[in-house]
Amino acid sequence: MLLQPTFVPVGTQATVKSLSPEELTQIGVEIFFCNTYHLYLRPGDKFIKKLGGLHQFTRWQGQLITDSGGFQVFSLAKEHNGAGNLVKITEDGVEFRSHLDGSLHFFTPEKSLQIQHNLAADYIIAFDECTPYPATKKYAKKALDRTHRWAIRSLAEHKKLNQKLNQNLKLYGVIQGSYYQDLRQESANFICSQDFDGIAIGGVSVGEPKDKMRQAVSYALPTALKSGKPIHLLGVGEIDDLFDFFGQGVTSMDCTLPTRMARGGQFLHRTGNSTYDQRNKFKSQIMNSKYKLDQTPLDPDCHCPACQKYDKAYLHHLFKTQELLGYRLMTLHNLSFMINTTTQIRNSLKDGTFSKLKYNWLGRN
Amino acid sequence: MLLQPTFVPVGTQATVKSLSPEELTQIGVEIFFCNTYHLYLRPGDKFIKKLGGLHQFTRWQGQLITDSGGFQVFSLAKEHNGAGNLVKITEDGVEFRSHLDGSLHFFTPEKSLQIQHNLAADYIIAFDECTPYPATKKYAKKALDRTHRWAIRSLAEHKKLNQKLNQNLKLYGVIQGSYYQDLRQESANFICSQDFDGIAIGGVSVGEPKDKMRQAVSYALPTALKSGKPIHLLGVGEIDDLFDFFGQGVTSMDCTLPTRMARGGQFLHRTGNSTYDQRNKFKSQIMNSKYKLDQTPLDPDCHCPACQKYDKAYLHHLFKTQELLGYRLMTLHNLSFMINTTTQIRNSLKDGTFSKLKYNWLGRN
Repeated sequence: MLLQPTFVPVGTQATVKSLSPEELTQIGVEIFFCNTYHLYLRPGDKFIKKLGGLHQFTRWQGQLITDSGGFQVFSLAKEHNGAGNLVKITEDGVEFRSHLDGSLHFFTPEKSLQIQHNLAADYIIAFDECTPYPATKKYAKKALDRTHRWAIRSLAEHKKLNQKLNQNLKLYGVIQGSYYQDLRQESANFICSQDFDGIAIGGVSVGEPKDKMRQAVSYALPTALKSGKPIHLLGVGEIDDLFDFFGQGVTSMDCTLPTRMARGGQFLHRTGNSTYDQRNKFKSQIMNSKYKLDQTPLDPDCHCPACQKYDKAYLHHLFKTQELLGYRLMTLHNLSFMINTTTQIRNSLKDGTFSKLKYNWLGRN
Repeated sequence: MLLQPTFVPVGTQATVKSLSPEELTQIGVEIFFCNTYHLYLRPGDKFIKKLGGLHQFTRWQGQLITDSGGFQVFSLAKEHNGAGNLVKITEDGVEFRSHLDGSLHFFTPEKSLQIQHNLAADYIIAFDECTPYPATKKYAKKALDRTHRWAIRSLAEHKKLNQKLNQNLKLYGVIQGSYYQDLRQESANFICSQDFDGIAIGGVSVGEPKDKMRQAVSYALPTALKSGKPIHLLGVGEIDDLFDFFGQGVTSMDCTLPTRMARGGQFLHRTGNSTYDQRNKFKSQIMNSKYKLDQTPLDPDCHCPACQKYDKAYLHHLFKTQELLGYRLMTLHNLSFMINTTTQIRNSLKDGTFSKLKYNWLGRN
């Protein structure tokens, strides 16, 4: 099982963009997150199964999570196909068109679980509807009830497949309920009452303000914690989130931000003990001309391979010239920064210094 | 000095695209080639000088060559600026517009040497005009005479700068003369009579048929060999070229092909003892659907990190999804293949088995 807490980088298409498995291990990554929707479309889960599953395919010896495909079906597939090709949701499942070639596909809870068992990550996720933001309470309730029925179907299919394929994958159920306190609590109660191995909190980080996101999590968290099961927060992972949610007992969270920011030239860095009064407190843009002659590393306290060897001047050049080594060094740095911060939190939770550490970083409790 | 023979990968913008210096060392790269024109424009040679020169800038502990900038001025700058903005050549030098922003620049032999001394590679190249293909004999002769006058000016500026900056850079003079036997011989005689540290053969691989290229080299090579100086062949490096030219005594050659091919999904591989009857004998395209389930490495005899760990199926997937790790693994493989082939040639030249090795690879002498 995962150590607590764990930050989970995203490797959508069975690779954490630009990095090798050796580099992931080198910077302390224990697990990464693959997207079922993408791998189902390319190369196809059946191909990956024939090739021995995701671990064998990628040569990654750490752990892996796949999602249910639901989030991408409701966002990516919809986004890319225009008004005439909306995703169709029925009781049975979801019809959608591929964002790659417009071809028609149908996901049911059973299908999502079959795909995930073909991919064979260590942790997998029940099929759910990721309610958009904003949503009326009426719609959120209707979607939630359906997600709960899909949770039961996901669980049944999962148990069947674990047995049939002689696998021991661990299944997370997903708490939804949009931003409604009673729905989130109802969902937490229901999901925690089922025989899932872990509890995921979904439907957050979908475009809402950050305080709304914190609220939505807070409605679900007490019940999830009482279950004693590992809790995964889906799609969340800014620096302050690590402190806010790991501090409350969340086990793991995944986020594309550190890797996506890296490819855009944004690097994470510690800014000392000052008050956390700006959203971009821990981020800077390497393409800023002030770095052109800067012979210091991205973060002077960072032990990642990029900071140990290179200065900002060279990284500035690599980004201005769109050189691939730049994306790679920056991704190494940002992920390393996330992992190191998580390790500091992990240690501080053990030795009782968490509050001090959090205040030191964020300037607030 | 360089071991003989040496294949020189190209790292145009002070990075061999997608690879780290550690990886270059790991696969046996001893030296790489940077482009003066590109680095003059971005980040600027004066910035690189302030940052301690190319070695310090890139953290590369092997050797480096820069070119004179001439080739790019006559190709890239011209190509990108349309008919209204042609490169203007005078006795003093060349006026050109940047392919990045259209700004006007002027290179003279002195300026090229000043830039190269600011960059401070180990080996640098005299400023020359790379005659286009085809060229009339009249034009080729006119350009050649000017290139020879520029060679003398380059050499004088180089000696001044080596002293002034307390550097010990090694300067190569360039043999031109297009495809005319007498001009190539005249140029070889002239360049070899000057006090250069090495002799480069330029103006080949500029769009001409391969037999013409071989001819042009053959006109210049005997005189170059007699000089006893290292001979660098500019911009040449297919598998058969390694055998043809290293076999004749060329010391080193640089080529963008192995790295550019890699980013396009073409991989190099040994094809056994069969006759060399196709141009693409040593190349295949990883995106070909036949590799989708292929669990063998790119080349079964290759010891590069990509072949030691990954199969064609995963590389096929990485290329179909345009994942950065794919470009990187393929570049590692292709360069490793070039270096290993060169090492085989190096060893066979020492122990007298070169002819056998060449026949074994190419099916011809």
